[in-house]
Amino acid sequence: MMAFEITKDLLDNITQYITIKNDTELSVVFSEMHHADIAEILDELSFDETLYIIRLLDSETTAEVLIDIDDDVREKVLKQLSAKEIAEEIDELDTDDAADIISELPEKRKQDVIQHVEDKEHAKEIVELLRYDEDSAGGLMAKELVKVNENWTIVRCVKEMRIQAEEVTRVHSIYVVGDNGELKGRLSLKDLLMASTTSKIADVYIPKVDFVVVTDEAEDVANVMRKYDLEAIPVVDELGILLGRITIDDIVDVIKEEAEKDYQLAAGITQDVEADDTIWELTRARLPWLFLGLIGGVGAFLIMEGFQESFKENAVLFFFTPLIAAMAGNVGVQSSAIIVQGLANDDVKGSINNRLIKEMLLAALNGLLLALVLFIFIWLYNGELLKAFAISVSLIVVIIIAGLIGTFIPLFLDKRGIDPAIATGPFITTSNDIFGILIYFWIAKMIIGF
Amino acid sequence: MMAFEITKDLLDNITQYITIKNDTELSVVFSEMHHADIAEILDELSFDETLYIIRLLDSETTAEVLIDIDDDVREKVLKQLSAKEIAEEIDELDTDDAADIISELPEKRKQDVIQHVEDKEHAKEIVELLRYDEDSAGGLMAKELVKVNENWTIVRCVKEMRIQAEEVTRVHSIYVVGDNGELKGRLSLKDLLMASTTSKIADVYIPKVDFVVVTDEAEDVANVMRKYDLEAIPVVDELGILLGRITIDDIVDVIKEEAEKDYQLAAGITQDVEADDTIWELTRARLPWLFLGLIGGVGAFLIMEGFQESFKENAVLFFFTPLIAAMAGNVGVQSSAIIVQGLANDDVKGSINNRLIKEMLLAALNGLLLALVLFIFIWLYNGELLKAFAISVSLIVVIIIAGLIGTFIPLFLDKRGIDPAIATGPFITTSNDIFGILIYFWIAKMIIGF
Repeated sequence: MMAFEITKDLLDNITQYITIKNDTELSVVFSEMHHADIAEILDELSFDETLYIIRLLDSETTAEVLIDIDDDVREKVLKQLSAKEIAEEIDELDTDDAADIISELPEKRKQDVIQHVEDKEHAKEIVELLRYDEDSAGGLMAKELVKVNENWTIVRCVKEMRIQAEEVTRVHSIYVVGDNGELKGRLSLKDLLMASTTSKIADVYIPKVDFVVVTDEAEDVANVMRKYDLEAIPVVDELGILLGRITIDDIVDVIKEEAEKDYQLAAGITQDVEADDTIWELTRARLPWLFLGLIGGVGAFLIMEGFQESFKENAVLFFFTPLIAAMAGNVGVQSSAIIVQGLANDDVKGSINNRLIKEMLLAALNGLLLALVLFIFIWLYNGELLKAFAISVSLIVVIIIAGLIGTFIPLFLDKRGIDPAIATGPFITTSNDIFGILIYFWIAKMIIGF
Repeated sequence: MMAFEITKDLLDNITQYITIKNDTELSVVFSEMHHADIAEILDELSFDETLYIIRLLDSETTAEVLIDIDDDVREKVLKQLSAKEIAEEIDELDTDDAADIISELPEKRKQDVIQHVEDKEHAKEIVELLRYDEDSAGGLMAKELVKVNENWTIVRCVKEMRIQAEEVTRVHSIYVVGDNGELKGRLSLKDLLMASTTSKIADVYIPKVDFVVVTDEAEDVANVMRKYDLEAIPVVDELGILLGRITIDDIVDVIKEEAEKDYQLAAGITQDVEADDTIWELTRARLPWLFLGLIGGVGAFLIMEGFQESFKENAVLFFFTPLIAAMAGNVGVQSSAIIVQGLANDDVKGSINNRLIKEMLLAALNGLLLALVLFIFIWLYNGELLKAFAISVSLIVVIIIAGLIGTFIPLFLDKRGIDPAIATGPFITTSNDIFGILIYFWIAKMIIGF
């Protein structure tokens, strides 16, 4: 692979050039570099060095670099730039990226920056994009696209396209619209390349075209584009008027971020953090979930304390509480993870009841096998048949209930419009710990009779 | 959204048409449908019905449908089809999809099917692709691409391209090669559209082109394409000869699958399972991890039993073991998740030592805050200052060690070339449970002195 690697030498050179203000050498170093690589380097530099480079490079480059650097760094850089400087960057960016940057600014600065944008048409389009929720199709789309009227000839179409294509980085499809701007169909570049120049658009365009509505959720857009292997999809309003288009590179980021968010939630980490974030940021993301675990642990303590009278004859019961808690937690996490993933991929069909029955059977099967192993171990180890029996039966019941809770909670949250991913991880582990231990002692008490 | 929804009515109609063998109506139902939608319907039908539809529809459609249906269904369908029938499907598919299907067949059938493929050039290319590991660039690439020689004129180029483009579903880039087939650069469709027909390729092509080597790992290819927002990337061999290209739709699947695999591993689910799989498949994916948890629980039992002499005076210690185990597990999962995600995104830089020091500080900070809360609770609740102190100090140490284990194990596995994702979930929870409880009793014993 032609992988770009940041070497210590490279970083040392750059910091040294910055110290001695050798702008010529710096320009040489960065001139041939991809903006994503420059962003990677800036993430390794100090903030003052980063700002120095941003100010040194031309706004065409830095505009793209700003999109790629760490959110926190970008926020700090933008604070240091004047409204006019930011507007210069904005002028270089596609509308979707421009809107993303402006949306991060405080309300007053937004207006300031937009007023400084030179291309008024560009500014108008950005303002339009700012209206949409960032997790909707509108928040993902760019205004840049190539569209032609169904009544044009191929010759006129090619001519208009050449003009429009100047502004569009990648032409995926040519969208065909009617006189009111309503989306009619599409024309592939390949078809255009193959078509005779004398035809009319109306004769050659493909009337079947996938599209999304501007208010659709980003995750749904991702699912549609992935399912149909699309590289771009047009966005229309409620009346079918073509508003913009979403390209696959933005969807790749949506898929990645969505997966990372779910993964972090399952691991008990709120907010989007990375290994390189500060200890303070990481603590804020981790501590709340740990605190939840602490409360769960105190709950378990109170339950066990409530049963302590029976300890003398039933010490073995108490020694198995970590096992019970661990199994309840593990089963809960497993079942919730499968449901959360199925919901995200939109392939959980059928009724909640069927799910619960299936999970119950599954948990019963797993529980039975595990309880059998545990029964044999306890029996052989200390020969107390009744206690071995009580603990094993409790284990089965705890596993079944843990499985049901793990299945039900995400489905329930999803029905109520809450992201089911929060139900995975510490939330399910903690509640299952408490339920598990409580049920365990109840059942053991019933069987042994203390 | 123009979302496709499978209604009960639609399914009922289809099954009824199948029962009465009304092929005309079935053809009408499926004729306008996208292959991804047909696949979704087949996943809801019985196996015999699926086979009926596969045999009914033309091989151009069913070839694409076969790519999209559930792996298990495809395997069963392929078993029912003759080598000749499979070869007909293969003939319709791009080389990468064709190779994916053939690679799932038993060795003897592979040869049979390949011999039946009519287009011998196509067969040869598929055989070449079968050589590569499925998780490598070679395993992802297709042979279909548009390439032109640097010495051609634009006119010749357009002519050749029209021929080549017939076979390529989506032309992203035109790759420019030298006389030995070595990759020289690229030509964008847009440039071609804009260039004057009298120029030579050598004068207009862009010599800078991202590429990957055929042996590169799929995950690295995904990272490169995502970083540089590429929609297609050429694949070369070790000598720089152009072999094929990888398109973004395949990378989207890689990213999605990689994320789902990591997520499932973190939740204690091996193998790729879905909510709709059978109870038996789900048990196989879930039981091994639960069994690991059971062993961990037995370990915790043995430790607690070893300390049981001290129970009478120190019952409270035993009642807090679930809390200690839960905290150790949660902290371990949090730290391992951040490292695993950082490794997957290739942004864990710097030495292992620095990571461990940072995690230690982070865990110490979290531990201190949580221990303080716990200390106050125990003190107020039962007034035993020394025990409250012992438990709280143990909690801090346990959290620090859990964090270190959670950080170290994935880094260690990664260094040894093992997928670090297996270190998340039950593996880390279970080992942290045992270590946690052991350390807890040791430290409490030291402080209280039983």
